[in-house]
Amino acid sequence: MIRHSFEITLPQWCIDMAASLPDALTATEDRMALAIELSRQNVENETGGPFGAVVAGMESGKIIALGVNRVEPETCSSAHAEIVALSLAQQRLGTWNLAEAVPEPLELVTSCEPCAMCLGAIPWSGVRRVICGATKQHAEETGFDEGARDPAWREILNRRGIELQTAVLHEQAAEVLRRYRASGARIYNP
Amino acid sequence: MIRHSFEITLPQWCIDMAASLPDALTATEDRMALAIELSRQNVENETGGPFGAVVAGMESGKIIALGVNRVEPETCSSAHAEIVALSLAQQRLGTWNLAEAVPEPLELVTSCEPCAMCLGAIPWSGVRRVICGATKQHAEETGFDEGARDPAWREILNRRGIELQTAVLHEQAAEVLRRYRASGARIYNP
Repeated sequence: MIRHSFEITLPQWCIDMAASLPDALTATEDRMALAIELSRQNVENETGGPFGAVVAGMESGKIIALGVNRVEPETCSSAHAEIVALSLAQQRLGTWNLAEAVPEPLELVTSCEPCAMCLGAIPWSGVRRVICGATKQHAEETGFDEGARDPAWREILNRRGIELQTAVLHEQAAEVLRRYRASGARIYNP
Repeated sequence: MIRHSFEITLPQWCIDMAASLPDALTATEDRMALAIELSRQNVENETGGPFGAVVAGMESGKIIALGVNRVEPETCSSAHAEIVALSLAQQRLGTWNLAEAVPEPLELVTSCEPCAMCLGAIPWSGVRRVICGATKQHAEETGFDEGARDPAWREILNRRGIELQTAVLHEQAAEVLRRYRASGARIYNP
């Protein structure tokens, strides 16, 4: 019997955390600190892999959506933090194209550079900026696989009018990956 | 207020169709014909873009999951037919890694070559073969954007032990894309 639907849900601690967040975080570093905190809490609460993401307004810093890695709890290999955050932003704003959604452009803030899948998803989402914490090197040093991401990924994004900033609070972001590895948790790439 | 979850559901006609399918389709062409029929019906029923996909057993041809493009109806830019079919297969089999799921390896049969996002998703899913109908050229001729898919995508898949077959029933698959374009329906890339 085929399945008819699938659902991806944020963990309860994340929903609780969202209720106590300010409406906006005006500094880029504060939005990244939130993405990293999501990655850390996701490990501590054992609700997925060590990755967090935020969709926010580029001008106001308004928090539109949160995401954490949900691959294992939701048995869904595409439930990366970035895909979760982008999908929840689209649900909230009622459009698959975030470029059409609000008066200001939106950005994706992610605790780690996107894998090949998430890089491919970004241009379809309508975000206009991507801000990354831990680098590909950090991810690979801790055993994660980024897939065959094009080395020219900055140009791939820029050509579509999407700005990229990397290595924002990268040491704090990488520390979560290291702690995850040290914990002996499963590194889940097929 | 942030959203806590999102759900992707097959359209009712697809659920109805599934109920009358045989358990298995032993010929590759028959599995592709099903993927193309899904793409055609998705257009005719106005339930998403002109793309369909099937996850099946490589040896038995057993139908594990169906997928159609649900980007516009579900307001989710990543709800491509391939992601939907892979996610529903993972839900059914209770694992994010389809390589671990069943005694036989599984394949993804898709009515059109995957975009950059779906190509990136395939290695994470655990399928061991990908079979494609319409080509990148067909997709682009009808106005669809495949994204920055690496021209060496066959090697990218092969390096991870994933076999690729392209242009299976490609004329029938491309005809659905052409009819979609001729209908004046929206070609939805940001």
